[in-house]
Amino acid sequence: MSEKISFLGLGNLGMPIAESLINSGYELTVWNRTQSKAEPLAILGAKVAAEPMDAIIPGGIVISVLADDAALEEIFSMEVVEKLGKGGIHISMSTISPETSRQLSQIHEWYEATYVSAPIFARPEAVKARIGNICISGNVAAKERVKPILQTFVKGIFDFGEEVGAANVVKLAGNFMIAASLEMMGEAFTLAEKNGISRQGIYEMLTQTLFAAPIFQNYGKVVASNIYEPVAFRLPLGLKDINLTLKTASDSNVPMPMADLIRNRFISAIAKGRDNLDWGALAMGASDDAGL
Amino acid sequence: MSEKISFLGLGNLGMPIAESLINSGYELTVWNRTQSKAEPLAILGAKVAAEPMDAIIPGGIVISVLADDAALEEIFSMEVVEKLGKGGIHISMSTISPETSRQLSQIHEWYEATYVSAPIFARPEAVKARIGNICISGNVAAKERVKPILQTFVKGIFDFGEEVGAANVVKLAGNFMIAASLEMMGEAFTLAEKNGISRQGIYEMLTQTLFAAPIFQNYGKVVASNIYEPVAFRLPLGLKDINLTLKTASDSNVPMPMADLIRNRFISAIAKGRDNLDWGALAMGASDDAGL
Repeated sequence: MSEKISFLGLGNLGMPIAESLINSGYELTVWNRTQSKAEPLAILGAKVAAEPMDAIIPGGIVISVLADDAALEEIFSMEVVEKLGKGGIHISMSTISPETSRQLSQIHEWYEATYVSAPIFARPEAVKARIGNICISGNVAAKERVKPILQTFVKGIFDFGEEVGAANVVKLAGNFMIAASLEMMGEAFTLAEKNGISRQGIYEMLTQTLFAAPIFQNYGKVVASNIYEPVAFRLPLGLKDINLTLKTASDSNVPMPMADLIRNRFISAIAKGRDNLDWGALAMGASDDAGL
Repeated sequence: MSEKISFLGLGNLGMPIAESLINSGYELTVWNRTQSKAEPLAILGAKVAAEPMDAIIPGGIVISVLADDAALEEIFSMEVVEKLGKGGIHISMSTISPETSRQLSQIHEWYEATYVSAPIFARPEAVKARIGNICISGNVAAKERVKPILQTFVKGIFDFGEEVGAANVVKLAGNFMIAASLEMMGEAFTLAEKNGISRQGIYEMLTQTLFAAPIFQNYGKVVASNIYEPVAFRLPLGLKDINLTLKTASDSNVPMPMADLIRNRFISAIAKGRDNLDWGALAMGASDDAGL
């Protein structure tokens, strides 16, 4: 592969993406705040950078998969973006606000680099199976240059045009819908359980028929069993995302009462000490309320 | 076919079911409050009864597809159930409360008849395509006798055991989930629209990936277009169903905050004169609130 790629952020999602890129033949320079997490990738042939600045290749491609808006803003300092510079492209895959994308995009423009939003819908196992999906938005030429790279590890790429924040909005709307599906199943399965019907029974019926979609089949299994470990996406990250959804909604004057309800469920789950569970544990609120 | 069937209720759903049974070779005696609606079935060979009592065959099978609990209780008077009598089976397909099913089941038992709950998940076009699904509960022997009849016009039959109200609970939980999906898409698509993203674009992305299920694909198309005609299921029937869900929830001590939100959306839609639209118009509430 001709493209050399800098890769920043080796969390639950970043790690399998980086690994997939190395396996596809890309030369990766990786950076992670906790450097030891990069070791398995070094064994596969990745260079490991001590600082973000050291990872950046002038005019090259950098992919970031970071925890939140603050981490992205901190790591992509003026100096880092200046080094990326003319012809450089930043593929920003984190789930962040469209506002942060717009601001970062402007900074990149000042230094003649290009910022592309490319948030991904995938749990770690979906990355490994190459069945994730990416929403993308930003400069047309930059998107065309990076799509072949993204295509090596996802199933679908959905283009939402040139406004750089658009893909972030779709990602936040989608994450809201996943969280709302958890609450929906929590309430429905609890209603069934309190009426003597097994949670597994109603889960099977609904997810084989009307709700035969990955979100309901995968998360529904978890909600039916009411067991929220192992953790693929920690519950506080769900609160972070719904807060971003509601901030974006407020900024664009969109009341979202269902999202408000979800937000309160996340806050309550954390109050009950569920911050180390998978975000599916949001659904426990309905069971708690019913005295189960 | 050896079974002669009485069929009560030729509404949007009852009509295609009755037609399908005739086409499968069953001898039907049909009754409908507005008798003229039976005429197309008479042409196909159905007998038309002037009163429910006249349609009943002692020891036979009667299928009811009626508007609500009150209609079912009124039509299945003591006299009608007495005529159905020993060996008779009533397949009750209406969306009603589990409580009404339990009470009617007891009345049937007094007269040595059997009441089976068999609510159906299907819009009229799904009945015609034989892709609907039935939840069933009640007496084991009666269910075995009627399943071959039901199998002629649905794709799946899901058995929820002997407690006669169980299938009704699953149906109400499922209808709640459909209505909640409408609200969810209403909020998500409105957030997209107010951020310059086409409703059609976010609809296509989400329903080809995470939400690739019939409910989201079919209703999502309608929510994306914001056009709620033609009507397959009138909006006030949605309010009727969510009221039944919340009544059942209250009876079993299950708070359902998402269902409360849905109920208020239905009430508001009726207040705004949308009672002649399809129940998908529930999703307009989110657009209204955002000033669209």
